[in-house]
Amino acid sequence: MLTPLKLVVIVAEETIAPKIIADVMRLGASGYTSCEAHGEGSRGKRAGRVGETNLRIETVVGPDVASRIMAHLAEAYFPRFATIAWTSDVVVARGEKYV
Amino acid sequence: MLTPLKLVVIVAEETIAPKIIADVMRLGASGYTSCEAHGEGSRGKRAGRVGETNLRIETVVGPDVASRIMAHLAEAYFPRFATIAWTSDVVVARGEKYV
Amino acid sequence: MLTPLKLVVIVAEETIAPKIIADVMRLGASGYTSCEAHGEGSRGKRAGRVGETNLRIETVVGPDVASRIMAHLAEAYFPRFATIAWTSDVVVARGEKYV
Repeated sequence: MLTPLKLVVIVAEETIAPKIIADVMRLGASGYTSCEAHGEGSRGKRAGRVGETNLRIETVVGPDVASRIMAHLAEAYFPRFATIAWTSDVVVARGEKYV
Repeated sequence: MLTPLKLVVIVAEETIAPKIIADVMRLGASGYTSCEAHGEGSRGKRAGRVGETNLRIETVVGPDVASRIMAHLAEAYFPRFATIAWTSDVVVARGEKYV
Repeated sequence: MLTPLKLVVIVAEETIAPKIIADVMRLGASGYTSCEAHGEGSRGKRAGRVGETNLRIETVVGPDVASRIMAHLAEAYFPRFATIAWTSDVVVARGEKYV
C-alpha cells in the first residue's frame, strides 16, 4: 500500500546536526537518513569555512510533523545558523510506519 | 525537452544494496545514483548496529517501472530488511533516455 | 513563511562538477549542496570507469533560474558528458533567500 507523505530535507553544519536530528525525532519523525555534504549558501556562512562539512538530513513524515519541524527550524536555527530546509510530496510503501 | 517521470529513492543496508541495485536495473531502470548514508529507522534495525553504513540509491524511471520497483521491494525486502523507499514526481531533461 | 520553489538535482562526473557549480551560481542560484556519489547511467559512461566518483549537486531556486539551468545543461553538457538532471517542486522556509 502506498501512502502520500512529506519528505523534509535539512542541510546544516555538522556541529549542530546532532541537535537538529534529536529535535526532528522528538517532534515526531520515526527515522531519518543523513549524508555528508558540502556547499555554499546565500548567507556566505556555509562557504566561509573551507573544508567544513555539512550534513544533509532527510526524513519522511506526515504533514503535521513536517509543519512542526519546519516551524521549529525557523524559530530555533534559522536566525543563527546557515541551515536550509525544504519539503516535498512523496509516496511511500509501508506508509503506516511513518505516521 | 522536459519529461515528467518518477524519482525512486531507496535507503538500504550496505550489505543488501548491491542486490537491490541489480533488481532495480533488471526491473527497467537505465541507471542509478548512490550515496553513502547513515540513519535510524522506526524498526530500530538501522540504528542497532553502530557505525553501520547504508546506501541511498536513487533512480529516475517511468511510472510503470517505479511501480514495479516499489512492489518488488515490498515483497522481497521489506519483510526482512530495514529498507525504506519513496517515490516523487520529477521533470527531467533528456527524458527519452529514461523510459 | 513557506514558498514554493524548484529543486534542481544534477549528477555529474567529479571532474566537470566544479564548472557546473560555477555555471549554476552564475545562472542565479544563491547556493548549492553537493554529495559524493557513484552510479551507472544509460550511456554507459558513468559505469565505464571503475571507482570514478560523481558529484550529486542540488540547489533550490525560482522557476526561471531552474529553467535556465536545465537549458544550459542540455546545451553545454549533455551532448558530451554523462550528466543527468531533474527538477521537482519543493516548499522552503525562508524562501525569500532563494529568489
